[in-house]
Amino acid sequence: MSKKHNFSAGPCILPQEVFEKSAQAILDFNGIGLSILEISHRSKDFVPVMEEARAIVKRLLKLGDDYEVVYLGGGASLQFLMVPFNLMKAENGKAAYLDTGTWAANAIKEAKHLGQVDVVASSKDENYSYIPKNYTVGEGYDYFHCTSNNTIYGTQMKTFPDVPTSLVCDMSSDIFSRVLDFSKFDLIYAGAQKNMGPAGVTMVCVKKDILGKTGRNIPSYLDYSLHIKKESMFNTPPVFPVYATLLTLQHLENNGGIAAAEIRNEAKAKLLYGEIDRNPMFETFCKEEDRSLMNVSFKLTDESKKEEFDNAWKAAGINGLNGHRSLGGYRASLYNALPIESVQVLVEVMNSIK
Amino acid sequence: MSKKHNFSAGPCILPQEVFEKSAQAILDFNGIGLSILEISHRSKDFVPVMEEARAIVKRLLKLGDDYEVVYLGGGASLQFLMVPFNLMKAENGKAAYLDTGTWAANAIKEAKHLGQVDVVASSKDENYSYIPKNYTVGEGYDYFHCTSNNTIYGTQMKTFPDVPTSLVCDMSSDIFSRVLDFSKFDLIYAGAQKNMGPAGVTMVCVKKDILGKTGRNIPSYLDYSLHIKKESMFNTPPVFPVYATLLTLQHLENNGGIAAAEIRNEAKAKLLYGEIDRNPMFETFCKEEDRSLMNVSFKLTDESKKEEFDNAWKAAGINGLNGHRSLGGYRASLYNALPIESVQVLVEVMNSIK
Repeated sequence: MSKKHNFSAGPCILPQEVFEKSAQAILDFNGIGLSILEISHRSKDFVPVMEEARAIVKRLLKLGDDYEVVYLGGGASLQFLMVPFNLMKAENGKAAYLDTGTWAANAIKEAKHLGQVDVVASSKDENYSYIPKNYTVGEGYDYFHCTSNNTIYGTQMKTFPDVPTSLVCDMSSDIFSRVLDFSKFDLIYAGAQKNMGPAGVTMVCVKKDILGKTGRNIPSYLDYSLHIKKESMFNTPPVFPVYATLLTLQHLENNGGIAAAEIRNEAKAKLLYGEIDRNPMFETFCKEEDRSLMNVSFKLTDESKKEEFDNAWKAAGINGLNGHRSLGGYRASLYNALPIESVQVLVEVMNSIK
Repeated sequence: MSKKHNFSAGPCILPQEVFEKSAQAILDFNGIGLSILEISHRSKDFVPVMEEARAIVKRLLKLGDDYEVVYLGGGASLQFLMVPFNLMKAENGKAAYLDTGTWAANAIKEAKHLGQVDVVASSKDENYSYIPKNYTVGEGYDYFHCTSNNTIYGTQMKTFPDVPTSLVCDMSSDIFSRVLDFSKFDLIYAGAQKNMGPAGVTMVCVKKDILGKTGRNIPSYLDYSLHIKKESMFNTPPVFPVYATLLTLQHLENNGGIAAAEIRNEAKAKLLYGEIDRNPMFETFCKEEDRSLMNVSFKLTDESKKEEFDNAWKAAGINGLNGHRSLGGYRASLYNALPIESVQVLVEVMNSIK
């Protein structure tokens, strides 16, 4: 079967080069006569992969030596717990959270295990259809946590607040997709399975000077400082996911970095939102000003057209367009690796629904 | 370069069929026109993979519906923490541990975060060169934890004690290698990267009725019951490592299961230990009765032969024979997928050292 147009929300499309190189590495890694799946993580063949996978993140985000990068297992969901373990003070710990969707709410839930959590603003009252804006983060918080992009609702933070504490951001679904001043953030984490690589590894990029200040005795696997000290080899890392992540980031670096990706992503989003705004058969779930460049969540204005539309996009070789089960409708994810040609095919299909 | 003889301690050799099938799945998974790396974990293509990966473990271990299997990220090191989180009572929690090596000691360290830990026996006094035997596990413990095989020291538990509490075992380095009455255990966990699959996923097999009894409010990712309820899809699982694990276990099932693997593993171990016992140039680190069938840790009796031996095994295409950095010497890991022909090559090289 020929290649599909893959709009999956994650795990999602990666560059074809990543598939080809990583498949080859499984058969014979770098011509050493061994598979990437069977070599020691401490071998001279894999250690440079981990080193470069850590270094390339800092190059792409334009961060200096005051930041460290580690790769961990457990997904962003484990980071919901690790962030407060590492940043919330053991005595009278207190953190501020912005509630912009399901994943933000999940992060809030885990932080409550370790201390006081104040939700400074929430858009839950309108089913997360917008990004709250007029809120203040007061003094006395150990950190402020936000979620840059909300895959389910199709909203994205366009700016980030100035806060009088550490700024922590879950960038799982839009990291490496747009130019930001990443030095504004003290801790960024991201499950790899969108713009970074395949499922099975999570990247954490942290400003070193915010660690070690909680007075908390942190269990080993949950301790960022230990992972940093061990250069992301505290225990056996997810070797293949880290390697495929490196390939994905090398592909990004070789194709103009984040700035060039942003231009491509804006063109894809403009094309699709343009069709939604033009075509009375479709509408988005969220406020226009908060629309995500990564996940376009939309619905039919006339539900009786559902069968016709579903048959049409499936016939066009489109995959992964169903909306999240909690919201329904459709969701077109326009991650870095999705070519604009796939968006053109989708727009043509949408244009045919009258 | 031609295929090497891979004695790596883990990640380690897997069946060649696993490399071929998993490389193909990266290029096109089951002929669906998408890579296994880019499909949703909730897609109709991956859900059956996870279901079968969970079911095959119970078939191979001959366990019934009173057990559940989940796949998690974070490695066995995260299980060192998850086990006490799920099994140690919130009030006056108390667990018994057997200290047979570095990994057992690491498990003990993490459990101390959550309650009282009694080490019922330890072989640390003799550098973990034997498995303690004459110990008793008294009443009143929430569980007893042991490590079935000690990769660094080359020791292995041949029998398991009858204990008046839940029996928990870290089988990371010898699961699926020998026939045991697995129903004796209440919780078995194993990092995949030895006999199960590639690095990046950990299997937990737990008897359901031991869960939910601690009175502890468990953070989501650390909660076995939640992962069971969500059928190992609480969050995005490590898709590719789970798939490669399924391929590895299918290969085992199609080749006679654990009973047949045990016969092959015994033959390999007999061949190598036979050479060590015959050849005065070599000796093991551990007591004969506790020798591991999986990891043969040994050293030269005459260190002046080191260069000659190192050059000889490298010239023979052998990989991964260096001992763990904490012990030195050599370590030949004879995991399920290692063919006896590789052991024959190693024995021939050892035989040439006089």
